[in-house]
Amino acid sequence: MKITRTVKKILDNYESDNPGTKGNLARMLMHGKLGGSGKMVILPVDQGFEHGPARSFAPNPDAYDPHYHYQLAVDAGLNAYAAPLGPLEAGADSFAGAIPTILKVNSANSLSTNKDQAVTASVKDALRLGCAAIGFTIYPGSEDQYAMFEEIRDMASEAKSYGLAVVVWSYPRGGKLDKAGETAMDVCAYAAHMAALLGAHIIKVKPPTDVLWQPEAKAVYEKQNIDISTLPKRIAHVMQAAFNNRRIVVFSGGEAKDLDGLYNEIRGLRDGGANGSIIGRNTFQRPRDQALDMLDKIIAIYQGKM
Amino acid sequence: MKITRTVKKILDNYESDNPGTKGNLARMLMHGKLGGSGKMVILPVDQGFEHGPARSFAPNPDAYDPHYHYQLAVDAGLNAYAAPLGPLEAGADSFAGAIPTILKVNSANSLSTNKDQAVTASVKDALRLGCAAIGFTIYPGSEDQYAMFEEIRDMASEAKSYGLAVVVWSYPRGGKLDKAGETAMDVCAYAAHMAALLGAHIIKVKPPTDVLWQPEAKAVYEKQNIDISTLPKRIAHVMQAAFNNRRIVVFSGGEAKDLDGLYNEIRGLRDGGANGSIIGRNTFQRPRDQALDMLDKIIAIYQGKM
Amino acid sequence: MKITRTVKKILDNYESDNPGTKGNLARMLMHGKLGGSGKMVILPVDQGFEHGPARSFAPNPDAYDPHYHYQLAVDAGLNAYAAPLGPLEAGADSFAGAIPTILKVNSANSLSTNKDQAVTASVKDALRLGCAAIGFTIYPGSEDQYAMFEEIRDMASEAKSYGLAVVVWSYPRGGKLDKAGETAMDVCAYAAHMAALLGAHIIKVKPPTDVLWQPEAKAVYEKQNIDISTLPKRIAHVMQAAFNNRRIVVFSGGEAKDLDGLYNEIRGLRDGGANGSIIGRNTFQRPRDQALDMLDKIIAIYQGKM
Amino acid sequence: MKITRTVKKILDNYESDNPGTKGNLARMLMHGKLGGSGKMVILPVDQGFEHGPARSFAPNPDAYDPHYHYQLAVDAGLNAYAAPLGPLEAGADSFAGAIPTILKVNSANSLSTNKDQAVTASVKDALRLGCAAIGFTIYPGSEDQYAMFEEIRDMASEAKSYGLAVVVWSYPRGGKLDKAGETAMDVCAYAAHMAALLGAHIIKVKPPTDVLWQPEAKAVYEKQNIDISTLPKRIAHVMQAAFNNRRIVVFSGGEAKDLDGLYNEIRGLRDGGANGSIIGRNTFQRPRDQALDMLDKIIAIYQGKM
Amino acid sequence: MKITRTVKKILDNYESDNPGTKGNLARMLMHGKLGGSGKMVILPVDQGFEHGPARSFAPNPDAYDPHYHYQLAVDAGLNAYAAPLGPLEAGADSFAGAIPTILKVNSANSLSTNKDQAVTASVKDALRLGCAAIGFTIYPGSEDQYAMFEEIRDMASEAKSYGLAVVVWSYPRGGKLDKAGETAMDVCAYAAHMAALLGAHIIKVKPPTDVLWQPEAKAVYEKQNIDISTLPKRIAHVMQAAFNNRRIVVFSGGEAKDLDGLYNEIRGLRDGGANGSIIGRNTFQRPRDQALDMLDKIIAIYQGKM
Repeated sequence: MKITRTVKKILDNYESDNPGTKGNLARMLMHGKLGGSGKMVILPVDQGFEHGPARSFAPNPDAYDPHYHYQLAVDAGLNAYAAPLGPLEAGADSFAGAIPTILKVNSANSLSTNKDQAVTASVKDALRLGCAAIGFTIYPGSEDQYAMFEEIRDMASEAKSYGLAVVVWSYPRGGKLDKAGETAMDVCAYAAHMAALLGAHIIKVKPPTDVLWQPEAKAVYEKQNIDISTLPKRIAHVMQAAFNNRRIVVFSGGEAKDLDGLYNEIRGLRDGGANGSIIGRNTFQRPRDQALDMLDKIIAIYQGKM
Repeated sequence: MKITRTVKKILDNYESDNPGTKGNLARMLMHGKLGGSGKMVILPVDQGFEHGPARSFAPNPDAYDPHYHYQLAVDAGLNAYAAPLGPLEAGADSFAGAIPTILKVNSANSLSTNKDQAVTASVKDALRLGCAAIGFTIYPGSEDQYAMFEEIRDMASEAKSYGLAVVVWSYPRGGKLDKAGETAMDVCAYAAHMAALLGAHIIKVKPPTDVLWQPEAKAVYEKQNIDISTLPKRIAHVMQAAFNNRRIVVFSGGEAKDLDGLYNEIRGLRDGGANGSIIGRNTFQRPRDQALDMLDKIIAIYQGKM
Repeated sequence: MKITRTVKKILDNYESDNPGTKGNLARMLMHGKLGGSGKMVILPVDQGFEHGPARSFAPNPDAYDPHYHYQLAVDAGLNAYAAPLGPLEAGADSFAGAIPTILKVNSANSLSTNKDQAVTASVKDALRLGCAAIGFTIYPGSEDQYAMFEEIRDMASEAKSYGLAVVVWSYPRGGKLDKAGETAMDVCAYAAHMAALLGAHIIKVKPPTDVLWQPEAKAVYEKQNIDISTLPKRIAHVMQAAFNNRRIVVFSGGEAKDLDGLYNEIRGLRDGGANGSIIGRNTFQRPRDQALDMLDKIIAIYQGKM
Repeated sequence: MKITRTVKKILDNYESDNPGTKGNLARMLMHGKLGGSGKMVILPVDQGFEHGPARSFAPNPDAYDPHYHYQLAVDAGLNAYAAPLGPLEAGADSFAGAIPTILKVNSANSLSTNKDQAVTASVKDALRLGCAAIGFTIYPGSEDQYAMFEEIRDMASEAKSYGLAVVVWSYPRGGKLDKAGETAMDVCAYAAHMAALLGAHIIKVKPPTDVLWQPEAKAVYEKQNIDISTLPKRIAHVMQAAFNNRRIVVFSGGEAKDLDGLYNEIRGLRDGGANGSIIGRNTFQRPRDQALDMLDKIIAIYQGKM
Repeated sequence: MKITRTVKKILDNYESDNPGTKGNLARMLMHGKLGGSGKMVILPVDQGFEHGPARSFAPNPDAYDPHYHYQLAVDAGLNAYAAPLGPLEAGADSFAGAIPTILKVNSANSLSTNKDQAVTASVKDALRLGCAAIGFTIYPGSEDQYAMFEEIRDMASEAKSYGLAVVVWSYPRGGKLDKAGETAMDVCAYAAHMAALLGAHIIKVKPPTDVLWQPEAKAVYEKQNIDISTLPKRIAHVMQAAFNNRRIVVFSGGEAKDLDGLYNEIRGLRDGGANGSIIGRNTFQRPRDQALDMLDKIIAIYQGKM
C-alpha cells in the first residue's frame, strides 16, 4: 500500500529524525487492518515479566507459547507486537517479516522491592531481531525515575542513530503518588508530556480518570476551565500534552471491564483523538477466537464503523 | 551585522575557550533585536518538565505546540531559545538557522521526591540539533549538589571540546536552605560564583532579595558595608561574584507580578549591569500579541529607551 | 499481506541469518506487485556513477531528479530500489517507508584507470537511511578482486550483525578476461557461485551466453553433457551454481535490445527459475508511461500471465 | 534576518540531514550581502598550499597575513571563507562569529609527484574552530580517485553526524584526462554528479567549456541535442547533473581574465542558475579596494542589478 | 621573570590554541639567556639517528652521553633542547625542570632507501617526559610527503589537545627536487608556508640560497621584483611566508663553515627578523668550552650586542 497522506503528515512531525526511524514508524503505521489510517492497535505481552506466567497465561494456556502471540497479532491484523527479549528470540525467525515488532528493553517483576525496572535487552538485540522499535517503561514519580530517564536517554539516542523508533510506556508510580494519583488527569497528561520531552516517538499511557491530584495543577485546571468531564475530553487533553498532537499516543486498556465497557472506552479514545490502543491482557487471556473477534471490533471502532 | 566592540570585549573574557565556543557565544550575543549590545533576552521553555503541561500551557493553549515557542522567540527578536530534547527535536528542522538554541540537558519534575535532576539529553544531541549551547541546572545546597557538579563537569568538558557554549542555571535549593535562603543576597551571589567556578560561560540566577541568610556571610556584608539596599546594587554585587563581570549573567523573572512590576525589575537588572533576562512563564502564558508587546518593552528597557 | 509459503521457503534457506536479516529479505520479497511470489523486480540507478549523468539521464531528463526513480519504483510496484548514497539521501525522507531500498556501497566510474570500485557509503548509512540491504559489486577476475572480496567480507559481516541483507553484483571483469569471457556460461556460473561463497543473500549476475571460456571448464561441460543450448537451461545452471537454488539470483537486462527481445529474455529467465530481474537503463531511459508499461509486462511475465 | 522562503526551499532539499547540518547550511546561505537570496560568494584561500606563498600573495603582499582574508571576506559581505587548518587557527579567535568558515581538510602542493591530496585537518578541528563546514577536494579520473572517495566518505559521515555541512571541490585531473578533458562539458557535469552521489551538500566545479571529451558521452550529447553552445546552457546542464538543482553548486573563476570577462562569466553562471561563485586568486591578488569593488559588482550581478 | 610584552605579543598570535600550549611556548620563549626577547636558540641532537654515532659524536666523544647535551644546553642558557625518545629518557629525570625539551617524534637514518621518516615516539611520551613540545620532520616534495602530512596532522592535533606545542622541521627533499631545489628561495619559503598551513607553532627551515627553482615561481619573483639578493632579505621573505610573522621560525645552521661565517649568517638571520637558530652539529662537535663560547656569541648577536 502506498503511504497515505494521513501517515505522511504524522511522519512529518518527526522532523529531526533520520529516514530510518521514519521508515520504521511508517512500517508500524502502514501495517495491518488499520494500516494507513494513522491509527494503531498494538499487542504487548510483557505481562509474564510483570506478574508471572500463571497470572498471565493460565486463563488461556495456549498463550504460554510465544508463537501464539505472534500469530494472534498477525491474524488480527494489528500494527505491531511488543515483547521482552526471550519471546521475540523464540519467534522472530518463524515470523520474520510477518509483523513489526517492538523489543521491550526494560522489565519489572512483582517480586521487586522497588519501583524500578531492569534493562533486559539492548538496541543491538532489536536490530538483530528485526524490530521496528524499542520499548521502554518509565515510572514518573518513582524514587528511581531519574535513573530511568537517564537509561532511556542513552538507549533512545542509540536507537535513533540506527534508524529505530522509540516507544515509551509512561506509568506514574511510586514516590508520593497514591493509587488515585497514578491515573489522575493531571498526572497522566504530565506523564505523556514527559515522555514527549524525553524524545519518545510513540507514547503509551493509561486512560486518565477525572481526578486532579496535584493541588497546584488542580487550581490551574479549575481556573482555566479545562473540561475533563468525559473520556474524549480527557484524551484530547492528553494529546495536547503530547506536543499538541505532534507525537503518537496509544492507550492501554486500563482496568478489567466487560467487552461493552471496553468498546465504549475505545470509542472514547477514538473520539478524543487518540492514535490507538495497546491491549495485552484483555487480548491474550481470552480464547483465540474471542480475542480475534474483540480485536476486529476494536479495529472497526477506530475505523469509525462501530 | 559585524561583531561589535561590546561583544568582542565580552568574548575576550572567555580567553581559554576555543574559537568554536566563542563563535557560539557570538551567535547568541549577535542575534535578535539586542544583537551586538552585549545584552540578551532568552526564552526558556522547560516549565512543562518542571510543573507539567497544564500548569505551563493551559493559560495559553497554543503553547502546547513546540513550534509556538520557536516562532515566538524568532518573532520577538530574542537572542536564543532554550528547551529540553523533545521540543527541540519537534522543531529544529523547521526552524534550522532561525534562532540560536540551547539544549537543556537535565530536567526535574514536580513529582520528584528529591532535589536533583535527571540528565535527559547529551552533548551529541546538541550538535545534531544545531544548538549553540547546552543548558544545565545545578541546585547548590541540595543533598545531590556534588553529583550534579560532577555531571556538569563532564558535560561541560565535552561541550567545550566540540565548540559549544555552556549555560548553567544555578538555583540554590534543598539541604539546609529554607525558602528565604533560596533567593537571599549572599546565597544568590554564592550560586552565581559557583557556576562561574564550575566553568559556566553564561550563568542564570534569580534576582536576589535583601535577605542575608548565612550568619557568617551576614557578618561580612555588614562589616564591609556592602550596599544591598536596592535591586541594582544587589545585581551589581552578583555581577561582581561572577568574576567581576567576566562572565555573562542573565536573570530569571522571579515570582509572578504585574507588568509594571516586571518592567521595574528589568530596569533594576539593567541598572545593576545584568547581561539580560531569561523569561519563560511570563512570556508564553500570555496571548501571543501581549507576549510580543511585553518582550518589545523589555528589549527597549535593555536598549535604554524605556 | 501475510508471508506466503513460497517466501517462507525462500527465507528458510538463509538458515544462519538472524531474524533482522530475514525480515529485511521478507520486506523486499513481500513488497510490490510481485510481493509474495518469490519473484522480484528491482530498479537499480547507479548508472550515473558508472557512465556519467548525460549518458544515463539525457534520454529522459526527468530522471536527473533522484525523486523520479523513487516514484517510478513505487508506482510500478517494484520490490526494491537500489542507488548510491547521494540519491538515497536526496529522497529517503520523502519516501520513508514507501519502498525497500538497497544502498549501493561501492561505485566505479568510467574515468577510472583500473577495474576496482571505491567504497562510497557505509553500513551505518544504510541504517540511518532505513535501507533493507547493502549492495556491493565484485569484479571476479580483476587484479583487484581479492581486495574487493575482503571489503565485502567486512561490510557483509557488519551488515548482517545489524539485521541488514547483502546484495552482491558479481560482474567478471579485468585480468585475463576478454569481452566474451565476461558473459561466458562457465564464468557467469562461477561468478554467481563466488558471490554465494562470499555469503551474499541476493546475487546479481548477467544472463550468460553459450560461450565456454575456461578450457578446463569447457572440458567438463562437454564431458558431463551439460545442456546450455537455451537461455532457460543456462539460467537453471546458474541457479544450480547458487547453492542449488538456496540463494536468490536476479539478472540484469544485458545489452540494449527492443522490447520484444527484452520480454523474451525475461521469459527465458523465468523459465530457467530466476528469482527476477534488476533493470536500470531499460527503465529510466524511457518516458515514464512507457517505462511503467514495460515494467507491468515484465511483472506479468514473472506472474506467468504473459 | 529571518530565513527566507528561497533558503527554506533549498534546505528542504537536504531532507535526510539533521537540523545541525541544515542550520550550518543556513548560516552560510543567510550570511552577507547575498544572505537569503539562495546565492553565495565564497572566498577560498588554499592557493598557498597549491602553488606556494609567493605565487599566491606576492602580487598583494598584505595577503600573506591570514587576518587579511578574514577581514576581506567580512568587509565584502561574502557568505563564507574557506581555508586550510593553519590560517583558520591563526584568525578564528579574532573573527569568532564574524563569518561562516569552511575548513579545507585536504590539500595538495605543486611539488607533488602524483594527483592526490593529503588529509591535513580533521572534523574535530572544524568543530573546535567553529566552522560551518568541511571542504574536501576529489580528483575524478586520477589514479588516486577511489582512495580520495573513501576518505571523503569517512569524513563526510563524521561531519554530518556532528551537524557540519560538507563542501566538495570536484576537479577532474590525472589518469586518462588531458588538459581539454579537465574542463570539458561532459566531464564537468560528471564531476558535479559524482560529488552529489558521494553525498556533498555544496559542490564546487569549474565552468565547463563546450568540449565533449568522452566519445561515448559525445555521442549522447549529439543524439539528444543537448544545447551546450553558451555558458548559461552549460551551467544549467551542470545544475541538472547535480540532482536537478537539489544540490548547491558554486563555480570557481576559471582562467585569469580581465574584469569585464569575469563579470560576463558571472552573468553566464547566474543566467544558467548557478548558486554562486567561489573566487580566490581573482580576489586576494588585487589591492584590497579593487577587490572589494570587484566583489561588490559580482554580488550585484547575482542580485540581478548588473 | 615576568612575561615580557614581546613574548606576550608572540603568544597572542597563537590565538586558537589553549593556554596549555601557550604556556609551553612561553616556557621556551622565557627560558635561558634570550628569555623574554622573543628570540630563541635551541640545541637539537638527532644527528645520531640521521648519520650514526661516530659521524655525530666521535669528534667530541663526551657527546656520546645524553647527559652531556642536557648539561650543555642548560649551561649555555639556551631556550630548549630537542632530541629523540632515547636520549630524553636517559636524562629527563636528572634534568627535570632544568630546561624545556622537545621530543623529536619522527626520525630518519642514513641506511634508508626512501625519503621518509619513522614515527619513533608518541605524544604521551612527550607528556611523561615533561616536554614542552613535540618535534616532527616533513619532507615537502618527497613521494612520502602526503603520508608525513597526515602523520603530523594526527600528532599535532593530539599534542595541542594536551597543551603541548608543535615544532615542524620542514626540509624539502626527494621527488622532483634536486640539491639546488632543496634550499632554493622559493622552495624554502614554500616549505615554511606549508608547515604554517599544517598548524605548526614553531617552524624550522634552512636558510635559503638565492636560487629560484620552480619556473612558475621564478616568473612571479621576477615580475614582482621580490628582493632576494641578501640573506636578511631572504629571511624576511621566509618570515612573510610564515603568516606574515605570525609564526615563530628558527633556522638551522646550514652547511659547515668557519665561526666567522657562522656568526655572519646569524647576523643575517637576525637582521631578516628570524626568531632564532637551532644549532646541532656546530655545537656538540666542538669541545665543550668552545661550544659554550660560540653559543655565547650567537646569543650576543641575537641580543644585538655583536
